[in-house]
Amino acid sequence: MLKVLKFGGTSVGDLEKIQNVANIIKKEKDKNYDLVVVVSAMSGVTNKLSSYAKHFSKDSSSKEVDMLLSAGERISSSLLALALNEQGYASISMSGREAGILTDCHYTRAKIQSIDTKNISKALKSGQIIIVAGFQGYTKEGRVSTLGRGGSDLSAVALAGALNASICEIYTDVDGIYTSDPRIEPRARKLEKISYEEMLELSSLGAKVLQTRSVEMAKKFDVNIISRSSFAPEIEGTLITKEGNIMEKALVSGIALDKNQVRIGLYGVSDKPGIAALIFSDLAKSQVNVDMIVQTVAVNGKTSLDFTVPIEDLEKTQNIMLRFKKDIQKVDYNEKICKLSVVGLGMKTNSGVASKAFETLAKENINIRIISTSEIKISMIIEEKYAELGVRALHEAYHLDKTCKSF
Amino acid sequence: MLKVLKFGGTSVGDLEKIQNVANIIKKEKDKNYDLVVVVSAMSGVTNKLSSYAKHFSKDSSSKEVDMLLSAGERISSSLLALALNEQGYASISMSGREAGILTDCHYTRAKIQSIDTKNISKALKSGQIIIVAGFQGYTKEGRVSTLGRGGSDLSAVALAGALNASICEIYTDVDGIYTSDPRIEPRARKLEKISYEEMLELSSLGAKVLQTRSVEMAKKFDVNIISRSSFAPEIEGTLITKEGNIMEKALVSGIALDKNQVRIGLYGVSDKPGIAALIFSDLAKSQVNVDMIVQTVAVNGKTSLDFTVPIEDLEKTQNIMLRFKKDIQKVDYNEKICKLSVVGLGMKTNSGVASKAFETLAKENINIRIISTSEIKISMIIEEKYAELGVRALHEAYHLDKTCKSF
Repeated sequence: MLKVLKFGGTSVGDLEKIQNVANIIKKEKDKNYDLVVVVSAMSGVTNKLSSYAKHFSKDSSSKEVDMLLSAGERISSSLLALALNEQGYASISMSGREAGILTDCHYTRAKIQSIDTKNISKALKSGQIIIVAGFQGYTKEGRVSTLGRGGSDLSAVALAGALNASICEIYTDVDGIYTSDPRIEPRARKLEKISYEEMLELSSLGAKVLQTRSVEMAKKFDVNIISRSSFAPEIEGTLITKEGNIMEKALVSGIALDKNQVRIGLYGVSDKPGIAALIFSDLAKSQVNVDMIVQTVAVNGKTSLDFTVPIEDLEKTQNIMLRFKKDIQKVDYNEKICKLSVVGLGMKTNSGVASKAFETLAKENINIRIISTSEIKISMIIEEKYAELGVRALHEAYHLDKTCKSF
Repeated sequence: MLKVLKFGGTSVGDLEKIQNVANIIKKEKDKNYDLVVVVSAMSGVTNKLSSYAKHFSKDSSSKEVDMLLSAGERISSSLLALALNEQGYASISMSGREAGILTDCHYTRAKIQSIDTKNISKALKSGQIIIVAGFQGYTKEGRVSTLGRGGSDLSAVALAGALNASICEIYTDVDGIYTSDPRIEPRARKLEKISYEEMLELSSLGAKVLQTRSVEMAKKFDVNIISRSSFAPEIEGTLITKEGNIMEKALVSGIALDKNQVRIGLYGVSDKPGIAALIFSDLAKSQVNVDMIVQTVAVNGKTSLDFTVPIEDLEKTQNIMLRFKKDIQKVDYNEKICKLSVVGLGMKTNSGVASKAFETLAKENINIRIISTSEIKISMIIEEKYAELGVRALHEAYHLDKTCKSF
C-alpha cells in the first residue's frame, strides 16, 4: 500500500529534526508501506533566499526566483535521502522535474498541469523510498517552476492523487485540526474527521495547518489527508475527507479567527449604475482578494459600501481607490477588525446556527459590523479587541469542547 | 564575439560582491561581447552543505551529495541573473542540465562527456547573457551530477571550447599568475603569458589559481584562458595559451612551493623482483597520488625507497604499508618537508637550469632529499623550515623579478 508523507519546514528545520523525520519514515517503511515523501525547505531557508532576491529585484515573478527558491527543497530532500540511505533504507531524492511534475508557465505561482509518474513508479518498484523536493515542478520550456506559498502541500496532494495513494499524511508542528485555536481557547478539541468543505472554510479563514489550494485539490481528486505532528507522530491526527465518509455530521466543527483583514468603508458613493461593479472589477484585475461586501441602500443618490481585503493587499487597494476619487466622498480603512467564522456541515440542514451566533455575540455586547454566510459558514466582522472573547463565547455556545455537539 | 567569464566563490561571496560581478559583466556587454558567465557557489555555501552531508553519511560519493551541493551554484547563478535583469541587461540562469552539460555517472567527481549548446545558442541569439551554474551537469540517468573540486573552472573551459569562445576569463581574488607566491617573495612578478604546460606544472605544484583538470582541458581544446581578479578588473591578468603563441620562451617562468606533501621512507625492503611494483600498484588502486620516487641500490639483498604523497592520502598510505610488513624493515613518515619546483619552457632547450638550482640551494646550506625532473620542471624535496628561504633564493638566482630572464 502506498502512502504519501509530507513534512513542512519546521519538521525539517535542522539536522536533528531531519533525523526525527527519518525515524518516522523508517517506522512507516517497517510497516511495509511504499512511501513517497515530500519535503519543504528547512525553515528559514526560503525566506533567506527570498530576501536575497529582493535585494536585487522587485520583480518577484521572475523565473530566476523559481530557480533560486527551488534550491531550498533540493537541499532538504537530498539530506533526508542521504540520512535514510546511511541508515539502511534505500532512498532517492527527486527534484520536481524528476518526479514528473509538469506545470504551466506562471513562474513563482505555477499550477500543476500533469504528473508523469514513470520515474517514481520505477523507483518504488525497486523498493526505494522516494524523497520529492516539494514546491516545484518544471515547465514545457524546460525551466524549474515553483508553486507559490504552501506549494509543498500541493505537491504532496497532487502526487497522492496521481499515484492513487491510500492516504496523504501532512506533518506539521500541530497534531491536527482543532475546533478553535488552542492558544485562544484552551478547551479547543482536536477533530477526528472533517470534510474538505469545512476544512476549506477553516483554512481560508486563517487556520494555517493546510493551504486552501491543497484542500481544493484533495477534494477534486478524492485524496484522504491526515493532518498530524512530526513532533508527536504517535498522536492520530485529523482525517480530512469527503462528506460521504463522515457519518455523524457536526452542526458546527470549528470557530476560525482571521485578524489579517482590513475593513474598507466607502461613503457617499455616487449611486450610478455600475460604479460598484467597476470598483470590484478593478480590484479583481489587480488580484486583490476582496472577501466580504455589504452595500447599504442609496439615500439622496448616494450609497455606502463596506468590504474587507487581506492586509497585504491594502496598499494596492488604496491605489485603486484613488481612481474613483470623483465618485466617492470618503474612504476609511480600519485594520482594527477581525473576522470570526462558525463552520459546520450540519448547518446545511439545521436552522438556528446563525441566530445562535448573533445572540451569543450580542450577549457579550460585541457589535457585528458585517455578516456573510455560505451553506456551511457564517462569518462576522467585529472589532479586533473582542477577537478572543468572541472565539471563546462561540466555542462555548456550540459546546465544541464536547464530542457530542447538540446545543 | 563570444567570451566566457567565470567567477569563483570569493568573487560572488556576498550580495555586494555579486553586484560587483554584475558590474564587470555589464561593462563587457557594453563592449558588445556575447557573454556566457559561469559562477561558483557563494563562498562558504558548498562547505556548509558538505558538512550537512557529513553529519548524515560518510558516503561522500552518493548521488544525493550531487543533488545537495549543486544547489549552491543554482542560488548564485539565479541571483546574478536577477540582478542583471533588474539593471536592464537581459539574462537567464541555466543549470548544468539546461546548459546541456552531459557527464558520465561518476557522481561527485563526474567527467564531462559532451555539451549540447542548443539552449545556450538560442538564448545568445536573442541577446541574453547566459549565467550558468558551474560545477554541475547531468547524467544519462537524468540525475544532476557534480564535477568535483574546482569543477566550475572546468565548466567554463568546457563551455568555451564547445562554443568556440574567443577567450575564457577566469576571475578569482588574484590578478594573475606570478613567478612565485607574492606572500613569500614580494618581488614576485606577474606573468603576461604562460603556456599550458608550464601552468600545469605550476598548478599541480600548489599554485591554486587554476585547477589542473581545467588547464588540461584548455590545452586539449585550445582554449585561451585569462586569469584575472574580480576585485581589480582593470588589471590585465595573465594569458594561459599554447606554447606556439608565446614568442619569447622564458627559461624559467616560476618557482612553486608545495607544503602539502609527506615523504615516506621505506627501509630494508626485500630486494625481491616486483616488490616496489606491488607497493605502487596497491597505492594506485587506492587512488593515492604518489608523486616523487627514489630507490637506492640494493645492499645485502635490501633496498630503500623514498616517495611522497599528498597529506590527505597519508592515512590510506599507512594502511597499505601494513600489508607489506613482512617485506619492509622500517617505515617512516615525514610531514616536515616541502617541494620546491622550478618551471620553465626554456629548459627544454637550455642546459644549466637544474645545476643552477642545486648550486643555489647548496649555497644556502639547504639539503635536497629527493629530486625529480621533467622536460620543463625540476622538483626538489627539502626540509620544510627552508621553504621560504629556498623560494627566495631560487627567485633571485633566476632573476625572476626582471622581465628579461637571462642569467
